[in-house]
Amino acid sequence: MSSALGIGTVLVANRGEIALRVIRACRDLGLRSVAVYSDADAHAAHVRHADAAVHLGKSSASKSYLNVDALLGAAREAGADAVHPGYGFLSENAGFARAVVDAGLVWVGPSGDVIERMGDKATARTTAEAAGVPVVPGSGVVASVDEAVAAAGDVGYPVLVKASAGGGGRGIRPAANADELRRVVDEARREASSAFGSDAVYVERALQHPKHVEVQVLADTHGHVVHVGERDCSLQRRRQKLVEEAPAPGLDPALRERMCTAAADLAREVGYVGAGTVEFLVEEGQHADRGEFFFIEMNTRIQVEHPVSELVTGVDLVAEQLRVAGGEPLSVTQPDVVVRGAAVEFRVNAEDPDEDFLPSPGEITALELPGGPGVRVDTALAVGDVVPPFYDSMVAKLAVWGPDRPTALARARRALAEYRVEGVPTTLGLHRRLVDEPALVAGTHDITTLERLLG
Amino acid sequence: MSSALGIGTVLVANRGEIALRVIRACRDLGLRSVAVYSDADAHAAHVRHADAAVHLGKSSASKSYLNVDALLGAAREAGADAVHPGYGFLSENAGFARAVVDAGLVWVGPSGDVIERMGDKATARTTAEAAGVPVVPGSGVVASVDEAVAAAGDVGYPVLVKASAGGGGRGIRPAANADELRRVVDEARREASSAFGSDAVYVERALQHPKHVEVQVLADTHGHVVHVGERDCSLQRRRQKLVEEAPAPGLDPALRERMCTAAADLAREVGYVGAGTVEFLVEEGQHADRGEFFFIEMNTRIQVEHPVSELVTGVDLVAEQLRVAGGEPLSVTQPDVVVRGAAVEFRVNAEDPDEDFLPSPGEITALELPGGPGVRVDTALAVGDVVPPFYDSMVAKLAVWGPDRPTALARARRALAEYRVEGVPTTLGLHRRLVDEPALVAGTHDITTLERLLG
Repeated sequence: MSSALGIGTVLVANRGEIALRVIRACRDLGLRSVAVYSDADAHAAHVRHADAAVHLGKSSASKSYLNVDALLGAAREAGADAVHPGYGFLSENAGFARAVVDAGLVWVGPSGDVIERMGDKATARTTAEAAGVPVVPGSGVVASVDEAVAAAGDVGYPVLVKASAGGGGRGIRPAANADELRRVVDEARREASSAFGSDAVYVERALQHPKHVEVQVLADTHGHVVHVGERDCSLQRRRQKLVEEAPAPGLDPALRERMCTAAADLAREVGYVGAGTVEFLVEEGQHADRGEFFFIEMNTRIQVEHPVSELVTGVDLVAEQLRVAGGEPLSVTQPDVVVRGAAVEFRVNAEDPDEDFLPSPGEITALELPGGPGVRVDTALAVGDVVPPFYDSMVAKLAVWGPDRPTALARARRALAEYRVEGVPTTLGLHRRLVDEPALVAGTHDITTLERLLG
Repeated sequence: MSSALGIGTVLVANRGEIALRVIRACRDLGLRSVAVYSDADAHAAHVRHADAAVHLGKSSASKSYLNVDALLGAAREAGADAVHPGYGFLSENAGFARAVVDAGLVWVGPSGDVIERMGDKATARTTAEAAGVPVVPGSGVVASVDEAVAAAGDVGYPVLVKASAGGGGRGIRPAANADELRRVVDEARREASSAFGSDAVYVERALQHPKHVEVQVLADTHGHVVHVGERDCSLQRRRQKLVEEAPAPGLDPALRERMCTAAADLAREVGYVGAGTVEFLVEEGQHADRGEFFFIEMNTRIQVEHPVSELVTGVDLVAEQLRVAGGEPLSVTQPDVVVRGAAVEFRVNAEDPDEDFLPSPGEITALELPGGPGVRVDTALAVGDVVPPFYDSMVAKLAVWGPDRPTALARARRALAEYRVEGVPTTLGLHRRLVDEPALVAGTHDITTLERLLG
């Protein structure tokens, strides 16, 4: 199969479960994979599973997985002809995407220009509007507190102040009125500056009880764009997703169709290539056609929660990324994408829910993975492995499929009961509680539900 | 969900991975599960995962999993109202099925009468013929060597002498001509007598290079019968299946349709209830309609290889067994059963392929299970568990799904490479070799292929 692709060796510029996920896709396609690792990850699973591995540097992310020179050097050293960035780290860094291309390598993702255009949230809003996709009422970049207050007056309170360069739920401040807004604007700009290297912020209306629904899109270099259905990711804590599912429960079919079409239109409009996600907020039941949706952002990479889309459609999203990067057309057309059943994913984080979700690195002393019908586990951890303190605390994803949503949730209950991790506290206990929460069971949860439940 | 079912607590009269599989289905349906165990299995996974567990007796199968009195006592003690027999052990024992019903419990399977009728191979042949299902040319029960030779003359050499009460590939002797036949008939009768308690044998023509293709059927107590597609199980060693897949590669669609319809007809004809498998031999390309199929036997229980059918159709076969036993109609009608993609299963046996597949009990000292997209593992083994010498040597099943057969095989290669078991030799190394065998890759293998490969 590899012979059909224009690439042969893929440098996986990431770590943990997503590095292993990409390595698996490479193996399935007959591509050679090259892992990279920091000091802390010298014995990590992604290193053990790849065909080759190159050391990057010390354990801190800036010396390793964010170190562009070291990554490009590793690609050269290992004879890689393509770079897959995974998610997080440099995956949405236009400069890195360009540096990869400038080094004569294939970047597995959209061009640096597209990343830049969609990565800047204010520009992305404008682009979405131009493509006819509804956005949350909001402003352009505001240069001062007074500009922010004026914009909020037009938009209507409550509002959110958002970092234009932000993402992953970070760099966002709420304000219920002008007084609050005056207090947070400069704070938001300072945080944006230090977190994202740009102090540009804008103001957006804060919806009250929206659901987070996002659409997976795929596009190739031959002009084909398909959507791979939607995911509901409304169960969030501090804007970090904890539970995701496909399809979105209770979503009106006509609204779903409009959202999926809008996402594909946007991808087409910006000349998108690869896998991407268009994120929306949905307020239901307020319109004649039972709901309104608003673009919030586009993620120009594979997402943590991609397995739920894979489970209901059978499409291998990471393999499609690699095929597209290799110059091949997508393996599916829109009519091939048929949703069967329902899937739910639970993020297993090495965090202590009883200690305000404090990241809890340590050594895994015992491990039993769930199995049997409908269960998929993505993890890079084995017994004896150490969760290092330097990176994201997510250590595994449990994804469960069922022929219908109640069966998927029943299987999730069973798999969560079977799953045993010893040595570090995890969010598994929280998930065992959440899976029985009436709002989740009914599918009526929104993005405020989890914080309310956690008190 | 349990409230809808006429049963509440299920005694799982088995051990190992199939006991765990049934326990998982119980959990998914909200049913209470009761495990049973021998001395050797006191700390086994099926005991750990069930809601309750009852000790049966000493380690030998006759004192434990074949001990009818102990099993019925356990059901009483634990307050079970249903008994699921799994596969092997007493699963096709009509006497046990009747004893369960006589004890006022629900038997998860067809009636004792149906088990008896289909369990006797000679009677099953007659029943199949009566239902219009083609059978391999053969005789009725032969009472002497001379009767056998006369029958073989009509049937045509080479022939197989088969135990009427046999099953699972045991009690079968080949004969290429009358001299060989004279030598093996009495031997076959003695073996049949000691293995199955009946010395009845019959003669059947030995097909030369057939494929083993079997059809999964489901039937409820409301008169519904559906088939859940077919499986190819041609990769066999000494008539023991090692690799199974769904759908059957290269099978002519019209032939598939005729086989599936014949299997459902047979189930209807005998008043079948529950999950069952109708096994056929297929000789391809000899007919105007590209192939001929012959009934060989019906297995009146869930089969080892059922996960491949579950992976391509999304139907939970064990949950359907329990639903039907609880008086519910099947959850699917025939049009609901749609095959998507391809699935392959590999039996992981604690056997040493280098020592003529000698069963190799021992303690599991290290274990890494494969994961990621398309991978399902059914196993009752964890690190520190012991494979006892008393029972079947199969310790795990790796089943892999892909959107098409080449992708399923590619994922199988990857998952087999990831799978690590230490402490006992297994068939994993053999499977890593088999998955690259040209005959398997091309899908042209038949029931003689594996023995030829093994030399």
